[in-house]
Amino acid sequence: MNNFVYHNPTKLVFGKGQIARLAELIPAEKHVMITFGGGSVKRNGVYEQVVNALAGRDFVEFWGIEPNPSVETLRKAIALGKEHKVDFLLAVGGGSVVDGTKLISAGLMYDGDAWDLVLKGSYNKTVPLATVLTMSATGSEMNNGAVISRYETKEKYAFYSNYPVFSILDPETLFSLPKRQIACGLADTFVHVLEQYMTTTGQSRLMDRWSEGILHTVVETAPQALSDKPDYDTMSEYMLSATLALNDMIRMGVSQDWATHMIGHELTALHGLTHGATLAIVINGTLRVLRDQKHAKLLQYGERIWGITGGSEEERIDRTIARTEEFFRSLGLSTHLAEEGIGEATIAEVERRFNAQGVHYGEAGNVDGAMARRILEACL
Amino acid sequence: MNNFVYHNPTKLVFGKGQIARLAELIPAEKHVMITFGGGSVKRNGVYEQVVNALAGRDFVEFWGIEPNPSVETLRKAIALGKEHKVDFLLAVGGGSVVDGTKLISAGLMYDGDAWDLVLKGSYNKTVPLATVLTMSATGSEMNNGAVISRYETKEKYAFYSNYPVFSILDPETLFSLPKRQIACGLADTFVHVLEQYMTTTGQSRLMDRWSEGILHTVVETAPQALSDKPDYDTMSEYMLSATLALNDMIRMGVSQDWATHMIGHELTALHGLTHGATLAIVINGTLRVLRDQKHAKLLQYGERIWGITGGSEEERIDRTIARTEEFFRSLGLSTHLAEEGIGEATIAEVERRFNAQGVHYGEAGNVDGAMARRILEACL
Repeated sequence: MNNFVYHNPTKLVFGKGQIARLAELIPAEKHVMITFGGGSVKRNGVYEQVVNALAGRDFVEFWGIEPNPSVETLRKAIALGKEHKVDFLLAVGGGSVVDGTKLISAGLMYDGDAWDLVLKGSYNKTVPLATVLTMSATGSEMNNGAVISRYETKEKYAFYSNYPVFSILDPETLFSLPKRQIACGLADTFVHVLEQYMTTTGQSRLMDRWSEGILHTVVETAPQALSDKPDYDTMSEYMLSATLALNDMIRMGVSQDWATHMIGHELTALHGLTHGATLAIVINGTLRVLRDQKHAKLLQYGERIWGITGGSEEERIDRTIARTEEFFRSLGLSTHLAEEGIGEATIAEVERRFNAQGVHYGEAGNVDGAMARRILEACL
Repeated sequence: MNNFVYHNPTKLVFGKGQIARLAELIPAEKHVMITFGGGSVKRNGVYEQVVNALAGRDFVEFWGIEPNPSVETLRKAIALGKEHKVDFLLAVGGGSVVDGTKLISAGLMYDGDAWDLVLKGSYNKTVPLATVLTMSATGSEMNNGAVISRYETKEKYAFYSNYPVFSILDPETLFSLPKRQIACGLADTFVHVLEQYMTTTGQSRLMDRWSEGILHTVVETAPQALSDKPDYDTMSEYMLSATLALNDMIRMGVSQDWATHMIGHELTALHGLTHGATLAIVINGTLRVLRDQKHAKLLQYGERIWGITGGSEEERIDRTIARTEEFFRSLGLSTHLAEEGIGEATIAEVERRFNAQGVHYGEAGNVDGAMARRILEACL
């Protein structure tokens, strides 16, 4: 096991009716800005619950943080927050709203342009932020990461700042989500786990088991989560799985990969494809191209998650990769670039960007431009 | 899934050589009291590592917190701490030292007698405390609970106050432990999980998987942990398993039991038997007597942990309970009261105490004096 530090101070407030506790959770003297995405929270009743919970309190609203939040939009929120001397942020929405609000949180404490912070990669002076989650996928509600886009240059980078002080997770908020969003959330959750699990074996038996626990839960509950009448317990499992998949709890003492994510981010930046949808495609290429490097863990994963035991090791790995792709297809997602109209031009641009940045992603540091090309070609 | 709040702010600093980071982790202006048990940390080099890490810093030492820490001893520590205006506590030792230091932490902020605090059950004014763990079992290094004894009356109660601000877990500190202590630590870890897992099924698939993940890890690593030459990775798995077994991470949204613990505490109070050793006995009685109430979860546990699938449900449960007892015996621990010279007189006293206190322990609230008698008789 590798040395590690684990420190996640976010308070998770989970369950039905918990949005009503907002007034008790946010200190009374705070000047609050509430951040939102589009109008879906007005249609599903969440906005009303939030406003009722904070009745009589002083707050300002900022609307319009888009999917793949852009620095262009967030600059406006930072200006509004500074104008109102905001010292507490409440993000109400999905991962994009939460991610965007993390940059606002840092931007309120920074005099220059917010894109500087993204290029720095992290910033530790922040205004406290909390969340009311309405879409489960990114885990941003219980981690310190964010992904921020810059539309004018089609760039998209990770940014690290603060953990939310609390996050309210009411599974009932998920009932009104379109099925495609749930499918992308399940795919995102599954691949978050694989990025922390599909690495060198034998680093931690316990972390392997916890990762596999989330994978089992997602596989077992996905059909019901995507049915016409998902029940509360299913949505609870989905919501909790998404949070625990990326809140540092399954990465204690083990190495990580994240190459699939880095390639996926480029597809989102270039085509606007939803994050989870990019992962459901790219992960298959990653597993095919890096199957030798991930040999032992692929065998363990195949046996424990999919019950694949017979045949030679290479046959078992073939079946394991095929079974993984089948799972993403069962969610109704594409698993080939061609299905999304993506081809050689994009592959060339991703290769060019990776080479220009001189990056070497992945557990083994071997995912450079040429390897990204091979991975993308393997999921054409 | 039940509503829940999860909030564990302890920073875990895990791995080789991490004790050297103490000076960076404790704010320089703090008046520190370091608390210890007996002298084992002087023999295994931990004391020297701690003192070297804090060279040049101002601190006072308190020695002699005993196994099953007593209010009689802790009162002296509180007096010493008040005299030196201590505002930071560092517990260096196992669960007993950490537990005892939690009461010191509250006692430093309280004007009356520390036993009042134990009888209150909790106290939220505390001096910050941190730990350097040298014995894994109780999970106290990453939770807010403690168990405090009063020798003059042979009483032992749970007390809740603060989470450590940080805990340093260096698996190398475990190499010098006697095998019996490791065995008791493994038993304690295993039963901590069962107290949160062996309850109503279907509350959370994910929490079930995470509990099973710890059980698998303990079962798989126990033989090597108890061998003559345990390796670093094995001790890492044991140390991490013990911490994660009782730090709130496997109890999200699920009910709990704890009847076995409450009965075990009485055996320690009356006979001085090590906590883990009491659990290795009592849990077998609990499973036998409450097998109908725990029917469905016993089947799940038997299948997933011990691979027990054939035969009728009752036969499978018989084998599952027998296999669990075998596991504790494989650790070298007693599984019957008679082996420890405990008999009817003790059973009568436990029954009398439970009745006098009017308690109803366990998930179903049905473990009163009469049920405690049945459970203890079932492990005679």
